[in-house]
Amino acid sequence: MPKKYPFAPIHHTLTNVLTDHNLAQLGDAYTNFVYSLAESSLKHKPTGKKLKGALLAQALKKANLRKHLPSRTNTHALADAAEALLVYAWLHDHITLQESVTTLQKGKNTIEALAQLLTTAKDRIKLS
Amino acid sequence: MPKKYPFAPIHHTLTNVLTDHNLAQLGDAYTNFVYSLAESSLKHKPTGKKLKGALLAQALKKANLRKHLPSRTNTHALADAAEALLVYAWLHDHITLQESVTTLQKGKNTIEALAQLLTTAKDRIKLS
Repeated sequence: MPKKYPFAPIHHTLTNVLTDHNLAQLGDAYTNFVYSLAESSLKHKPTGKKLKGALLAQALKKANLRKHLPSRTNTHALADAAEALLVYAWLHDHITLQESVTTLQKGKNTIEALAQLLTTAKDRIKLS
Repeated sequence: MPKKYPFAPIHHTLTNVLTDHNLAQLGDAYTNFVYSLAESSLKHKPTGKKLKGALLAQALKKANLRKHLPSRTNTHALADAAEALLVYAWLHDHITLQESVTTLQKGKNTIEALAQLLTTAKDRIKLS
């Protein structure tokens, strides 16, 4: 169990991570903070920016993670899944805030960068 | 200049920190993430929760920081000021995310805990 955040759930399948609604709630706050930091770096001044659900959903598909969710899952739930995965990897110390921010700044656009971040998270949590 | 976040402004007075609207924008994302982590610890499961502006404004007054802002400053701007100070201290490595979360969990209520966090931030950035 993670020492820093003992409330972090431990899941044994990727689908369980992606469909954890509690994780998605915290993941929303996490993702917006990481995205705001990345945008601040880009603009060379502090700023706050919310990530649109459609972008998260598209990034999840691009990262080839769509198949781990039921076929009828809607865009909102796909975005939740992405947020859940990102914060799960962070809570379990598989990625730092700093690396997440740096990864988000790379890629030719936000969807590509998010897809890369999701792939990194997925690979490191070692669940299938 | 902070190595990790070179976009972080360097201010020479506390009033300049408290009235920096760019900082307040990033501070909003920071504060909601910290508060969500503290609430998650309290509930023993991940959750997301937004801090109400009125609570932040009251905490700023309780921390005796009201006097550093113009007398006509409204509640919204007081909340912005609190968020700006909290993220400024974090960006400049005066407080960690972990310590912020722990501090927020203490105190007999959210306003008291926030006031303590603001006081810690103010003391450590060493500006008046």
